[in-house]
Amino acid sequence: MPEKVIPDIVVGRLPIYLRSLQRMLAENRHVTSSQELGERLGISAAQIRKDLSQFGEFGKQGTGYSIDFLADQLRQILKVDRVWDIAVVGAGDIGSAVARYQGFANRGLRVTMIFDNDPDKIGIQVGSFTVKDIANLGPTIVKAGIKIAMIATPSKEAQEVADQLISAGVKAILNYAPINLTVPEHVHVQHIDPVIHLQRMTYYL
Amino acid sequence: MPEKVIPDIVVGRLPIYLRSLQRMLAENRHVTSSQELGERLGISAAQIRKDLSQFGEFGKQGTGYSIDFLADQLRQILKVDRVWDIAVVGAGDIGSAVARYQGFANRGLRVTMIFDNDPDKIGIQVGSFTVKDIANLGPTIVKAGIKIAMIATPSKEAQEVADQLISAGVKAILNYAPINLTVPEHVHVQHIDPVIHLQRMTYYL
Repeated sequence: MPEKVIPDIVVGRLPIYLRSLQRMLAENRHVTSSQELGERLGISAAQIRKDLSQFGEFGKQGTGYSIDFLADQLRQILKVDRVWDIAVVGAGDIGSAVARYQGFANRGLRVTMIFDNDPDKIGIQVGSFTVKDIANLGPTIVKAGIKIAMIATPSKEAQEVADQLISAGVKAILNYAPINLTVPEHVHVQHIDPVIHLQRMTYYL
Repeated sequence: MPEKVIPDIVVGRLPIYLRSLQRMLAENRHVTSSQELGERLGISAAQIRKDLSQFGEFGKQGTGYSIDFLADQLRQILKVDRVWDIAVVGAGDIGSAVARYQGFANRGLRVTMIFDNDPDKIGIQVGSFTVKDIANLGPTIVKAGIKIAMIATPSKEAQEVADQLISAGVKAILNYAPINLTVPEHVHVQHIDPVIHLQRMTYYL
């Protein structure tokens, strides 16, 4: 039987549900409902129930969801019930901030190395990492078996860095450079550009 | 006649089109097509034509789009044909990186102030800004007439900061704290959390 294809927009909401559930657990909560989750997230309860039903039966009508169980299930679905190593490329302001970011802990992700091409940056400490020479990017990524990278280089270097990462086996790239990356179909890319988010809001002002 | 309501998902693509057009202009290009734009962005040409047609007639069948004209029109639609001042709250790694970010230039946005509540940070320089005391947040925002803010505080402070900003007249918030903010309907919020983007990709690995 072929696996059911889940719309990417649904997949995109699961991490938001998981984040909210983990927050409830931190508040020592153990049961919730699609209504409560929806109110916290500004998403309708019906949408949440529909999204979750794509993956199975996680709650009972009237008794709500066990937060621990649902969070566990979402971690498995999103494959963050393990820990993925991440390489950061670019040790400027953004790359350094991301490499030092504490928010990856307990969310299935950790930065394990950071690269730059600037001789003044190679060898310095960024958080707990020593900045590596980008000249060794490919072999280092291959050897470490890294599948996920974040690009925080200037725009003009981002595509070439992406090509190198992909050649070295990277399958998912989070790109902070404000250009659109072109990648093969088997590689996943997400972009973070604060201007894109801000301009989406200025429209309404 | 009532104004046509444009779906938010369409609005969300306009900044991506504009970014790509501005990049073409930087490459000294002046004419493009929905096909070319689509290939650069991984969006179908038909989708781009449909999105743009919501706002008017920007190109002629067969001759393509004038990049200068289309970029100008998108800037007007997105209201970034002016420059919006932005306040940053939180002078940690992320807030400092964002305050120093060079990528706002020529995109209708500029950071004009940064706040923190840490006595060790208040008064220090972050890029060209002196970190202001968050105790004066409200009056300072009101006086400057600021409508857009970025929150880069720890999660536990983000909601309270948002409430203060909104009381001071802020209408759009870009939130880097990894929690969901609750805001009144007239306020726009966007969230940037690298983990959300990364978990959306681990699903496919």
